[in-house]
Amino acid sequence: MHVQVIPSVKEAGSAKFNHKTAIAIDVLRATSTIVTALAAGAVSVIPAETVMDARALQRPGDIVGGERFSRKIAGFEFGNSPREYTEQAVGGRRVILTTTNGTRAIHKSMRADTVIAASLLNAEASARFALEQRRDIVILCAGSHDDFAIEDGLCAGLLVEHLKQMCPSAVELDDFGGAMHALYRANADSVLDTLMNSQSGKRLQKLGSAEDIYECAKVDSISIVPYLNGDQLILK
Amino acid sequence: MHVQVIPSVKEAGSAKFNHKTAIAIDVLRATSTIVTALAAGAVSVIPAETVMDARALQRPGDIVGGERFSRKIAGFEFGNSPREYTEQAVGGRRVILTTTNGTRAIHKSMRADTVIAASLLNAEASARFALEQRRDIVILCAGSHDDFAIEDGLCAGLLVEHLKQMCPSAVELDDFGGAMHALYRANADSVLDTLMNSQSGKRLQKLGSAEDIYECAKVDSISIVPYLNGDQLILK
Repeated sequence: MHVQVIPSVKEAGSAKFNHKTAIAIDVLRATSTIVTALAAGAVSVIPAETVMDARALQRPGDIVGGERFSRKIAGFEFGNSPREYTEQAVGGRRVILTTTNGTRAIHKSMRADTVIAASLLNAEASARFALEQRRDIVILCAGSHDDFAIEDGLCAGLLVEHLKQMCPSAVELDDFGGAMHALYRANADSVLDTLMNSQSGKRLQKLGSAEDIYECAKVDSISIVPYLNGDQLILK
Repeated sequence: MHVQVIPSVKEAGSAKFNHKTAIAIDVLRATSTIVTALAAGAVSVIPAETVMDARALQRPGDIVGGERFSRKIAGFEFGNSPREYTEQAVGGRRVILTTTNGTRAIHKSMRADTVIAASLLNAEASARFALEQRRDIVILCAGSHDDFAIEDGLCAGLLVEHLKQMCPSAVELDDFGGAMHALYRANADSVLDTLMNSQSGKRLQKLGSAEDIYECAKVDSISIVPYLNGDQLILK
């Protein structure tokens, strides 16, 4: 089974996804928020590319959330902090989410047979679900404004670590996947520090959202796997 | 001083090079060959983008070398193996070189104030020379056919290691640079193995060029620094 890791959305030509299982990652914070919202009982999360799309998709009872440049969008109920998506807030409701990088990564992956939203929170469960699909795997790091983001690379490396542990002989890695695996192994004991020192982490700390980073760094704390069914992310 | 690392030629928009010192890397094998040829006494190396350009640049006494898909170009005297560029072969002569990725990386960097050709062979000397230019630094991994190549990332990480040792407080790394630094530190004792297991390394072994990989893995064995002067790489 071939496992390819793509450094950022900019590199994600749609031909790379055909007949594959795609795993989209935006650790800070979109996929962490998606995982948290679904774990808290949201019915589904609908990734929207634009603010206008998000508004058009909203039906009565839906929650609309998202960010641009790490800030809540004017008029939206929620931002992109996983801490907002509590059971009380989202239980039994649909969430429409639009973010700068993460929702774009999910849209870029749509040519794949299966699209999974993964984060540090649910990496182990995501790796297992991906293996069960029995297809080659492409892991897309959302990155930040077309550039690589180290927290997404770290999560890609953690996914590779799990894939290799679950299926030691059958995983064939591309060079970037090998590099991210080495990155994860070198930082397995300092995940939170790596997030804090990343460009996105520093930006969030400046905006007073350090708490979000702690939330997003809880490795393998949630065992659900959001995957795309039509235009909605639901649980397997 | 800001240090940015670019994963592959595809990501190398020319705006990223303005007012900076660029370090182009193609460990397997173009920049290793360039360093070797100049260390062996070649007067200069002229990177040409196409086979036709290379032929047009050739004057009596010049050597024309290069590869496409890791193989020597029909009618060219030399391929892209550093072992061909001996003192006897190239001493006192100009070399025109065209390769799939490395010479393209040098051309992409031309907007920079200074362009250096670096490899594992001359990483320490290259880092020192780059610091002396007192500009922000952009390190361009040539990669392989628009994809990241782990041996170039490893060399970028080694350059970062040297830059940090030479100038501990002043180096400000982007996320990809941080990841490559971690990659290097995790593999500092297994450089040759990393090259052997890379996609490019495996391709070269299949073609019977394993010896080239040994040559290209001799970390900091050469202290010269090729830099671009007009359209020619010469020694400082």
